[in-house]
Amino acid sequence: MAAAARLAARARPISSPNPGVGALLVRDEHMLARGWTQAGGRPHAEAALFNALEGSPRGATLYVTLEPCAHESRRGPACADVIADARPARVVIGQRDPDPRTSGKGIARLKRAGIETLLLDDPASAASLSGYLSIKTSGRPHVTLKLAMSLDGCIALADGTSQWITGDAARAHVHAQRARNDAILVGGATWRTDRPRLDVRLPGLEQRSPKRLLLTRGVAPEGVSIINRPGQIADLEGVQYLYTEGGAETAASFLREDLVDELHIYRAPILIGDGLRGLGGLDLGGLAETHGRWTLTERRQLGSDEFTAYLRTR
Amino acid sequence: MAAAARLAARARPISSPNPGVGALLVRDEHMLARGWTQAGGRPHAEAALFNALEGSPRGATLYVTLEPCAHESRRGPACADVIADARPARVVIGQRDPDPRTSGKGIARLKRAGIETLLLDDPASAASLSGYLSIKTSGRPHVTLKLAMSLDGCIALADGTSQWITGDAARAHVHAQRARNDAILVGGATWRTDRPRLDVRLPGLEQRSPKRLLLTRGVAPEGVSIINRPGQIADLEGVQYLYTEGGAETAASFLREDLVDELHIYRAPILIGDGLRGLGGLDLGGLAETHGRWTLTERRQLGSDEFTAYLRTR
Ligand SMILES: NC(=O)c1ccc[n+]([C@@H]2O[C@H](COP(=O)([O-])OP(=O)(O)OC[C@H]3O[C@@H](n4cnc5c(N)ncnc54)[C@H](OP(=O)(O)O)[C@@H]3O)[C@@H](O)[C@H]2O)c1
Ligand SMILES: NC(=O)c1ccc[n+]([C@@H]2O[C@H](COP(=O)([O-])OP(=O)(O)OC[C@H]3O[C@@H](n4cnc5c(N)ncnc54)[C@H](OP(=O)(O)O)[C@@H]3O)[C@@H](O)[C@H]2O)c1
Repeated sequence: MAAAARLAARARPISSPNPGVGALLVRDEHMLARGWTQAGGRPHAEAALFNALEGSPRGATLYVTLEPCAHESRRGPACADVIADARPARVVIGQRDPDPRTSGKGIARLKRAGIETLLLDDPASAASLSGYLSIKTSGRPHVTLKLAMSLDGCIALADGTSQWITGDAARAHVHAQRARNDAILVGGATWRTDRPRLDVRLPGLEQRSPKRLLLTRGVAPEGVSIINRPGQIADLEGVQYLYTEGGAETAASFLREDLVDELHIYRAPILIGDGLRGLGGLDLGGLAETHGRWTLTERRQLGSDEFTAYLRTR
Repeated sequence: MAAAARLAARARPISSPNPGVGALLVRDEHMLARGWTQAGGRPHAEAALFNALEGSPRGATLYVTLEPCAHESRRGPACADVIADARPARVVIGQRDPDPRTSGKGIARLKRAGIETLLLDDPASAASLSGYLSIKTSGRPHVTLKLAMSLDGCIALADGTSQWITGDAARAHVHAQRARNDAILVGGATWRTDRPRLDVRLPGLEQRSPKRLLLTRGVAPEGVSIINRPGQIADLEGVQYLYTEGGAETAASFLREDLVDELHIYRAPILIGDGLRGLGGLDLGGLAETHGRWTLTERRQLGSDEFTAYLRTR
C-alpha cells in the first residue's frame, strides 16, 4: 500500500481535477504491473495499470490507494467494471472515495463480481490524496504554508533583505514543492516588494509551474489571479493543492482561519535578532491552545539548512 | 580517546577551577582502569586512575584528554612524574595544555622517561575541555546560550506568558544542563518579571545547583552576584562554564560581543505569531555575516520538542 501511495505521488498535481491515485498488481511477491493517474485525470490509475499489464491478473492482488470509481463517463468506463472484468483474486483499497457517485459503490460492485475486497484506512494513501480528500470533505484545497527562517524565526533583516536566508539545496527543494502544487499564493505586499516569479526553475520541471495567486483587497495585476480573503480558496477551479509562500500577514490570515493543513519550515543555522517575523498576529487565547495542533511528519537536512514538515492534527 | 572524553564529562563542572580530564588505561583492548578529575580538581584524572589500578600498567596505553601536568603542587605530585614512574608503554594525549607551567613540558617529561608519547588534536577532548580551554585562551568562561522557542521563534506570548512553551522532557534537559555549568545568568528584566529559581530540580542533582548571576546596570539583589556588562564574565572566579537563559536583551548583548560559544535551542511544535522574541537587535551589517557562524553538533527529540545544539565556528 505504501508503494502504491508512492506511485500516486507521480500524479501530483497533474491528475487535477481528478484524484492522484496509485495502483499496483502483485502476485507471489512479484509486481506484475503498476499505474497512476495520468495528466488531466485520464486514464485512471487502474486503467493505466491494465493497459500496461502483459498476461493475466488471475490470482494476483491489486493494491489501489482510492476506491475504484463506479461511474462511467464519456472519458472511459468505470474502474470497478474494468477490474471486475479483469478478475484479480483480491483488491486492497487504501481509502474510501468520498465522492457520492462512487462512495461504497465501487467496493460493492467488486464484491458482487465475486472479488475479495478489503478496505483499509491507510494513512499513506490519505496523505497522497490529501488535496482531493480536502476538496471533497472540506470544500477547499489542501494548503501548505512555507516559511524560510533563521533559528530565531526571522524571514528577513529589518530592512526587508531576505536574499538569502537558506541555501541552494533548500531553494531547490522549494522549487520541487512548487511543482507539486496546482497554485502558489503570496500576499499583496510580498508581490509588490519582491515581485516573485513563483515559477519552477528546476531542469525538466519548467513546464510544471503552477498557477499564480495573490491575496489582496485590491485588484488583480496582469497575468495573476486574486482572492480577496483566504476563504475564497474554496472557489478556486481545478486546485487541489495550494502552496502559500507568505508574507507574514498572509500566513497569519490563513492560520487564523485554520486553513493551513501542512507546514514546511526551512531553517537556516543563522541568528538575525530584530529582523522581520514570519507570522503576523494569530489572536491566540493562551499558550494551551497552541499545543497539539502540529505533528512532525518529516525532517531532513538540506545542505546546512534543516527542513521540517508538520501536519495539522485534526 | 572518545571514551576518555566521555569520562571527562563526569568531571563537569565539579573539577572547577581545574580542567575536567578523563583518563583510560587499555591493554590488548581491555580496560585496566579509568579516572577523571575529582571534585575541587584533585585528585587529577591520572592519579585517580593509578589509585584505582590493580596490577601493573606495563605494556598498556594510557589515553588522557589533556597533557599531564608538569608542575608539582602542595596538593600532589605532577602527573607526568606519576606516569613516568608507573611506566605504561604508551601515552596518547587528546589536547596540549595551554597552561604555560605544563604546555609541552608534560610531554617532554614523558618522552625523557622513555615512554612513547603521542599528541593528538582531538575534537572530543577539546569539547570536553571547552571551559578550561576558553579560560586559558580567551580569558573567559565557555558560554552556552539557551533559547526555548516556538517554531516561529517566540519565547512567550505578547503578554509575557511563557509557561509553558516546551514540555517536561525539554525542561528536565534544561535542569540537567544547569547542573553541567558553574553559573547561570539571566538579565535584570527576566529576574524582576519571572523571579526564576535557577536551580537544578532533578533527583540526585539538587546539590549541583550552580552560582546565580544577574546581568544588570543596577545593584545586586540579596543572594545573587551581578555583572554590569557581558565582558565582565572574564572576572568571574572559578567559573569555566556559564549558562545564559535570556531574556532577549541579555542574549543579544552577549551575541553582539561574540561571547556565545554554544547555542542550545529547544523548539516546541507550536506557532505563536506576534509573541515576544528570543533575541534583541544584533547590529548586523547584512545577511552574509550571519552565515557560517554556527555548526550543528547535536539534535535530539525531547518529547514533542526538538533540541538542537550549535557551536560557534571560530
Ligand atoms: N523569507 C521568506 O520566506 C519570505 C516569504 C514571503 C515574503 N517575505 C517577506 O515578507 C514581507 C511581506 O510580508 P507582509 O506580512 O508585509 O505582507 P504580505 O503577507 O505579503 O502581504 C500583505 C497583504 O496581503 C493582503 N492580505 C493579507 N491578509 C489579507 C486578508 N485577510 N484579506 C485580504 N487581503 C489580505 C493585503 O494585500 P493588499 O495590500 O494588496 O490589499 C495585505 O496588505 C516582504 O518583505 C517579503 O520579502 C519573506
Ligand atoms: N522562554 C524563555 O526561554 C525565556 C527565557 C528568559 C526570559 N524570557 C522572557 O523574556 C522577558 C525578559 O526579556 P528582556 O529582553 O525584556 O530582558 P532581559 O534580557 O531579561 O533583561 C534586560 C536587562 O538586562 C540588563 N542588561 C541587558 N543587556 C545589558 C548590558 N549590555 N549591560 C548591562 N546590563 C544589561 C539590564 O538590566 P537592568 O534593567 O537591571 O539594568 C536590562 O534592562 C521576560 O518576559 C521573560 O519571561 C523567556
